Amino acid sequence: MTLKTSWVTSANDAGHPFPLNNLPYGIFSTEALDPRCGVAIGDMILDMQRAEEAGVVTLDDGPVFDVPFWNELMELGPEAWDALRERLIQLLSDGAAERSKVEPLLVPQSEAEMHMPFLVAEYTDFYAGKNHATNIGTMFRGAENALPPNWLHIPIGYNGRASSVVVSGTDVRRPWGQLKGPNDDKPRFAPCARFDIELEMGAIVGTASDGPITVQEADDNLFGYVLLNDWSARDIQAWEYQPLGPFQAKSTATTVSPWIVTKAALEPFRCDTPPREVELLDHLKDVGPMLYDIDLSVTLAPEGKAATTIARTNYKELYYSAAQQLAHHTTSGTPMNVGDLLGSGTISGAEKNERGSLVELSWGGKEPIELDSGETRSFVEDGDTLTLRGAAKGDGYTIGFGDCFGTVLPALKDPYAR
Amino acid sequence: MTLKTSWVTSANDAGHPFPLNNLPYGIFSTEALDPRCGVAIGDMILDMQRAEEAGVVTLDDGPVFDVPFWNELMELGPEAWDALRERLIQLLSDGAAERSKVEPLLVPQSEAEMHMPFLVAEYTDFYAGKNHATNIGTMFRGAENALPPNWLHIPIGYNGRASSVVVSGTDVRRPWGQLKGPNDDKPRFAPCARFDIELEMGAIVGTASDGPITVQEADDNLFGYVLLNDWSARDIQAWEYQPLGPFQAKSTATTVSPWIVTKAALEPFRCDTPPREVELLDHLKDVGPMLYDIDLSVTLAPEGKAATTIARTNYKELYYSAAQQLAHHTTSGTPMNVGDLLGSGTISGAEKNERGSLVELSWGGKEPIELDSGETRSFVEDGDTLTLRGAAKGDGYTIGFGDCFGTVLPALKDPYAR
Repeated sequence: MTLKTSWVTSANDAGHPFPLNNLPYGIFSTEALDPRCGVAIGDMILDMQRAEEAGVVTLDDGPVFDVPFWNELMELGPEAWDALRERLIQLLSDGAAERSKVEPLLVPQSEAEMHMPFLVAEYTDFYAGKNHATNIGTMFRGAENALPPNWLHIPIGYNGRASSVVVSGTDVRRPWGQLKGPNDDKPRFAPCARFDIELEMGAIVGTASDGPITVQEADDNLFGYVLLNDWSARDIQAWEYQPLGPFQAKSTATTVSPWIVTKAALEPFRCDTPPREVELLDHLKDVGPMLYDIDLSVTLAPEGKAATTIARTNYKELYYSAAQQLAHHTTSGTPMNVGDLLGSGTISGAEKNERGSLVELSWGGKEPIELDSGETRSFVEDGDTLTLRGAAKGDGYTIGFGDCFGTVLPALKDPYAR
Repeated sequence: MTLKTSWVTSANDAGHPFPLNNLPYGIFSTEALDPRCGVAIGDMILDMQRAEEAGVVTLDDGPVFDVPFWNELMELGPEAWDALRERLIQLLSDGAAERSKVEPLLVPQSEAEMHMPFLVAEYTDFYAGKNHATNIGTMFRGAENALPPNWLHIPIGYNGRASSVVVSGTDVRRPWGQLKGPNDDKPRFAPCARFDIELEMGAIVGTASDGPITVQEADDNLFGYVLLNDWSARDIQAWEYQPLGPFQAKSTATTVSPWIVTKAALEPFRCDTPPREVELLDHLKDVGPMLYDIDLSVTLAPEGKAATTIARTNYKELYYSAAQQLAHHTTSGTPMNVGDLLGSGTISGAEKNERGSLVELSWGGKEPIELDSGETRSFVEDGDTLTLRGAAKGDGYTIGFGDCFGTVLPALKDPYAR
């Protein structure tokens, strides 16, 4: 697949995250415009609300752009998803006949504030990165018990907290929580001292289901992908997670990228999961390439200082695809809804500088990492800005998600003061 | 507190679950009426949609009864909750001046079908019954590790799946899942063979919060309570739950009672939590009586046969109140929303016949229980109807929730057949 050129010329730069091949979906506002659906093209955003009002874009069973979230398009189903993409490509291609109608509907990204691109119905977080699971398991339970016995047979997941999902740019307040160190007599209530990130991708369910679905059906039901940072309070997690799993450690915030990249845009980057170490049961078997070749990175910028890239990895490091996760999610009959968000689990490569969380990078704080500024980090410190980036590299073009970032604010002095 | 008498005379029987003291909230429909809000009084239901349309009930900032769920009333806040209750008591009391206006708005319960009484925003399930936690811990991890080290310090909870919550009367399909018995070489995909119930109460968040809240604030934010049966696939749970907690084992269905009993109706039945075995940290300490004295029971009826009461216990057996659970839920800053549902955790008394799940009653299947029909049960069998009941006993009156029941259908032969 090569670059499709657009009359929005900024979109034609090989390194630009939003070429015509991408067309990701977000929610934006400006001083003049209330939050609304928009499509990124180069340095601009196409205002979908005005496009629909003006009849430039019409969908059977619409309108869908009179609300500030993309769920209504998802509800219309895959044929509508394809029809919209086709129409957008037609409108924005180099030499488009209707350019003069579209041009007044463009807004510079520099003037836009981004909002949550969709209503999160429910949020599930998986644990599908083998390097991450091995690293965490080694630290929490010892090398002998690193990978749980079920890990190679099911994509382990747990239900997260949808209300804590926020869009990139939202500040994240360091949480308080109940903690008990290995040498403490008893627990105490204190600010988290081991606040962490998790580099993940999020898959968005675009078609509802009610009952078990196959891996192929699951892939068909996915609408698109976002970058996802699952902020994690490791000290709270260590004390609370047995026996029923992470709870308050994972519910302060989960940050997603401002742009949903559609499955259609990622199609050329499909790739297989790594070789199976044990054969999966039939209902979870791979039935085609359902991971994607997407370069991922994390940077950390201390307050007022330049950012250091602390990790680089790739989405294809995961052991299970989002389709396999969704198929497993439905085995017991769980109804899935439009807007359900599935976190991939932390994505870590095999090498030390490919690890997608600080607890792995600093090996539980024992090996602090060095930043370009000369500072070191074991976990996130107040004022740090953490940024995830993703890029699928085509022939002369790049598919990006927009920066997925958050700055950590100090814990409240008294969380109960009013 | 004694019986308040109503001109709906069926409400005045000492054993009737819906006296004027109760006034629980549900959603009902009839052949002639679409699903709508209703209030139970004796054998009748007051149609709130028509009551509001007719101006018999008006709320500042209303209307709220033009939708088939109670969330809009919750949104109005505690003053509106109190105002509505006061008005309902005025309208339905013996000798009410406006009886002639109200009487045409009553519908016999025998003609009504019940629906989910509220939109579940998110669902969290706790583990706050000490007898249950000890029993389960002993079976899953041995007597030495029965109660996890954190159990006496925090109300352990995990996020559940809101989309799986259904109203009483909904059939429950036995799920498939990935299982691996202790003697199996490898896992297999099969129908659940150890399908179970969990006798719980559900607390409904009526006021949103954003950040840590105190136990008192948490109690203030609760709107009411339902009975709750958290159907559980024990064999799926045993294989999947380490390390991130229950997932597919708990997402087939959770059944709630058709009626929400308000906090106001339960006020006379408030009682203290049991004595603390270790002192709680300040932010979780009891600040008043926040459990309730509610008798609970479970019956099991094989298909076509009479029901046997298999367990009797009381809500006050819990170690943590819903207010303490909600306070803990917010420690890390989790935003809570109107309609969030908090399952109490399984409620078991100290005695064998007071256990709120079959896995406890049959001790993991080793001691099957006998039914009145002569049959035995280790777990739920196809065709069984399980019914939870709850009753708070006042002076000459009873506060009930309506039966919370579900019948288990056989697993699909092929869950992927279309």
